[in-house]
Amino acid sequence: MNLSHIEHIGIAVKSLEEAIPFWENMLGLKCYNIEEVKEQKVKTAFFMIGQSKIELLESTDPDGPIGKFIEKKGEGIHHLAIAVKNIEENLQELDQKGVQLIDKTPRKGAEGLDIAFLHPKATHGVLLELCENKNA
Amino acid sequence: MNLSHIEHIGIAVKSLEEAIPFWENMLGLKCYNIEEVKEQKVKTAFFMIGQSKIELLESTDPDGPIGKFIEKKGEGIHHLAIAVKNIEENLQELDQKGVQLIDKTPRKGAEGLDIAFLHPKATHGVLLELCENKNA
Repeated sequence: MNLSHIEHIGIAVKSLEEAIPFWENMLGLKCYNIEEVKEQKVKTAFFMIGQSKIELLESTDPDGPIGKFIEKKGEGIHHLAIAVKNIEENLQELDQKGVQLIDKTPRKGAEGLDIAFLHPKATHGVLLELCENKNA
Repeated sequence: MNLSHIEHIGIAVKSLEEAIPFWENMLGLKCYNIEEVKEQKVKTAFFMIGQSKIELLESTDPDGPIGKFIEKKGEGIHHLAIAVKNIEENLQELDQKGVQLIDKTPRKGAEGLDIAFLHPKATHGVLLELCENKNA
């Protein structure tokens, strides 16, 4: 395995419009990008903090993953994303070790990253994302 | 405000003994410290990843904050901790802005850090900790 750093923390919110001012005006971070990820049925807003990002996630569809999460658990931290080098090799290694994966091969996420999720059953309840920026 | 980086992600687990091997053997991180924080009724295990830490939290008392969290929500991500410079000034600024704080002044947390929590009502559902290492 080849883990580098926390790439981002994904936080489910009901409304970007309501949540962004907390992170900007109260905490002094700057939202540098807002992007829709259609296949995930979310609109995302990004803030840099050190080598990591805060990713706010607003559902664009009540049946999408963030819509369902908020309905069940309310607003809050949704997932933890860790930057890796060579995501395919890491996924292969985890699969061989018997770790249950949601994505056995990477797909495209926000900001053009290659991403894959591990199953929370395999991680003691954490929705864990591996991601790699192949354009970096 | 003077936010530096993600200091750690706090993850509630039923058992450190069961959870540590996932982070060590499956993900290849190294647990460098295990510490009991009696006033929080937890045992904690730490892993470095980039400039941040993963902090696993096992309850030592079902009535403690982590015991109650797991009973209500199950294992999973519990809080997000952000490193700041001059934590007292940051708390004062947030208080003046009307942000609801759990701790208006810092207290001692794991690893000798000065820590304070914001109320999840103020943050759109995130249990947010500010912390400062005054020994660094």
